[in-house]
Amino acid sequence: MSAFKERAHKAGRRRFLARSAVAAVTAPLTAQALAGPLPAAEHAHVLVEPFWGRNQAGIATRPQRHTYFMAFHLTTDQRGELVNLLRAWTEAAAELTQAAPRMHTAGAPDTAPLDSGDTVGIGAARLTVTFGFGATLFEKDGIDRYGLQAQRPEALVDLPRFAGDQLLPERTGGDLSVQASADDPMVVEHAIRRFVGLARGTASIAWGQIGFLGGFKKGETPRNQMGFKDGTMNVASSDPRAMSDFVWVGDEGPAWLQGGTYMVVRPIRIALEHWDQMKLAFQEQTIGRHKESGAPIGQAREFDPPNLDAQDSEGNPLIAENAHVRLAVPTENGGAQILRRGYSYDNGVIHLAERWPPWRQATTFDAGLLFQCYQRDPRTGFIRIFARMAQFDMLNQFTTHVGSGLFACPRGAKPGEFIGQGLFLEA
Amino acid sequence: MSAFKERAHKAGRRRFLARSAVAAVTAPLTAQALAGPLPAAEHAHVLVEPFWGRNQAGIATRPQRHTYFMAFHLTTDQRGELVNLLRAWTEAAAELTQAAPRMHTAGAPDTAPLDSGDTVGIGAARLTVTFGFGATLFEKDGIDRYGLQAQRPEALVDLPRFAGDQLLPERTGGDLSVQASADDPMVVEHAIRRFVGLARGTASIAWGQIGFLGGFKKGETPRNQMGFKDGTMNVASSDPRAMSDFVWVGDEGPAWLQGGTYMVVRPIRIALEHWDQMKLAFQEQTIGRHKESGAPIGQAREFDPPNLDAQDSEGNPLIAENAHVRLAVPTENGGAQILRRGYSYDNGVIHLAERWPPWRQATTFDAGLLFQCYQRDPRTGFIRIFARMAQFDMLNQFTTHVGSGLFACPRGAKPGEFIGQGLFLEA
Repeated sequence: MSAFKERAHKAGRRRFLARSAVAAVTAPLTAQALAGPLPAAEHAHVLVEPFWGRNQAGIATRPQRHTYFMAFHLTTDQRGELVNLLRAWTEAAAELTQAAPRMHTAGAPDTAPLDSGDTVGIGAARLTVTFGFGATLFEKDGIDRYGLQAQRPEALVDLPRFAGDQLLPERTGGDLSVQASADDPMVVEHAIRRFVGLARGTASIAWGQIGFLGGFKKGETPRNQMGFKDGTMNVASSDPRAMSDFVWVGDEGPAWLQGGTYMVVRPIRIALEHWDQMKLAFQEQTIGRHKESGAPIGQAREFDPPNLDAQDSEGNPLIAENAHVRLAVPTENGGAQILRRGYSYDNGVIHLAERWPPWRQATTFDAGLLFQCYQRDPRTGFIRIFARMAQFDMLNQFTTHVGSGLFACPRGAKPGEFIGQGLFLEA
Repeated sequence: MSAFKERAHKAGRRRFLARSAVAAVTAPLTAQALAGPLPAAEHAHVLVEPFWGRNQAGIATRPQRHTYFMAFHLTTDQRGELVNLLRAWTEAAAELTQAAPRMHTAGAPDTAPLDSGDTVGIGAARLTVTFGFGATLFEKDGIDRYGLQAQRPEALVDLPRFAGDQLLPERTGGDLSVQASADDPMVVEHAIRRFVGLARGTASIAWGQIGFLGGFKKGETPRNQMGFKDGTMNVASSDPRAMSDFVWVGDEGPAWLQGGTYMVVRPIRIALEHWDQMKLAFQEQTIGRHKESGAPIGQAREFDPPNLDAQDSEGNPLIAENAHVRLAVPTENGGAQILRRGYSYDNGVIHLAERWPPWRQATTFDAGLLFQCYQRDPRTGFIRIFARMAQFDMLNQFTTHVGSGLFACPRGAKPGEFIGQGLFLEA
């Protein structure tokens, strides 16, 4: 361990011990809050999400307002350096999530501050940090860099090429992933900067994506950028039975992954400037829902199940065969369910050539959905559901998958462990 | 006026009349709030900022948490179409800022909804919309497209090339600018989409930049991404005398600009990954302030004025000759003062070649400061101050100006007027 990392290690340990009391006090608050709506920012800045536990935070956690996803390429070929990085990242995550960062400046003018200081005074803002391992951690170009090849989980497959995929290499893959989510945009950026800094010399940025959610009122489902309510038929993170059945890896997986999950992440560009010009009736047919109420077509309320057999007076299905909602219904996908936990993204302006009619070249928004889902096995989760959607969904006229990643998210760590530790101890 | 624009016009007028009562009720709240800290999101979502008035909103307005700046190129050569656009934009701004958007779907399945619907249920979140006119509106490549050439204000100069400028054409200039700021990220994106949609066929996107502020506690100055407190010596928007002296255009300007101002906008990339590795003492010398307290070097409190004459025991100035704070002090700039109202930005990851040592090529953050300042005359404001900074500021080692714009922001509109109306009536 380098002198720097050793110092960080000890400092992290001291802070952890000092803050355990804080975490214990706030835990009931956050547990209760899990089922509720997004909090007011005033509360957010003092709220703390637990870090240590059976599951990693940031998966079942009630969604925060801001997220920063970052994938990394490992640049070392030393297993020990990989382990040191995971240890340093774990300690940093435990520190940053449990309290507002301190300035770390006292008495050390001749060193770079451990913390950049830009969030001093803000608070933890419900920060969670979630780590993932890509397939290339276990084997890359046929090379077993870290002696992990034999331990690659069977379910950590290479995602197939889906119809319409326009994946950019610079927004795809990665050996490791780190995602910071919080109710403050500065807090997530600050956390990711810390993780990038700790990786210096061991791993470099592969790709990243920032996301956000609009605020919404108690009891309401937020609308997406297309103005619709979507995804209400998937696993609810507040339902432990469904989480256990569909999201958390059980006995079928290796010990380090039991209580973990598989995450699919895909930045999906939405041609909003195109969508916004579509007639209301067409928008509703495409989604299979009424725009205003959010109810499936032919129903009155948002949470009414769609009636896939209903027909209009001419015998045509009320919900079109290729409507988004029909293709997403679990009964149409062999019972498959996933936990969706996506964010909107907007990177500002890009210069674009469209792949769909009207094949425009334009200066427009690079905006859409940072799609993320969690499942016990991607083969019976995302892959099963999306393979059909990618072929048939009317929504595909407006969406382009521009990047992709699949990461195994280890079970949560106990105090003293580092994330993914079991993978290395079992080897 | 097209049928579509006429419809939008009438609808906007009805909504304005219906909402005047709301605005009147909330006005005292927002006026009182001007001097205070950033609000809790819970309050933000019901708070409304006034739209009509002598000054445009979004300048003296207490900064919101999120912003979306967008510059446009006009694609029409018809003065009437330009006027129609300004009218439609004004009405949309008056609507969106004064209440949560409605769905606009009832009974019109065969038309595209006027509103995309993605913020229904969120609220206005203190949305302000601020419009600006670039020099190219008055004259472009020597051509007077709209009969406005003679009315170009003398102070609407072409900014000189500053030392170190690395301006990208795709992040520079624009005939018109629109900036939406609010306490909700979805609200600003939604507003900008509406303005882009209304411009279809008349103007297209030139460039855009999204920005954010971290939350901070009552009475605290927020820290920038470098972890410092900066800009506390400039005009305070709560000081009407200083605003009148340094920000609002007075009798010296044309009538349409009296009560308006000039805005400089510059996305400034900060090499944070580089800065974060600098020793604390070096960081403090560069800025000329103590990092933790925010006080000028040698002082104890944040708002203490810097003592530029103070020396250390060896006779060297305590605050270096090229420290950022020294170059920014009004007395060093002939008394020049500006209203700063910037945001942090982070566009995620870019592939980069640095212009400063160590001249790295890297995959790193495209992050930094969306610098914005407002002044009565850019020649005695930004240009005077920044010309010296660009040459001497130690901070330049870490910053790169990658884009630039200068816009004349007309006075605010009265109900029934459109923004900039006087420019066209006076012609």
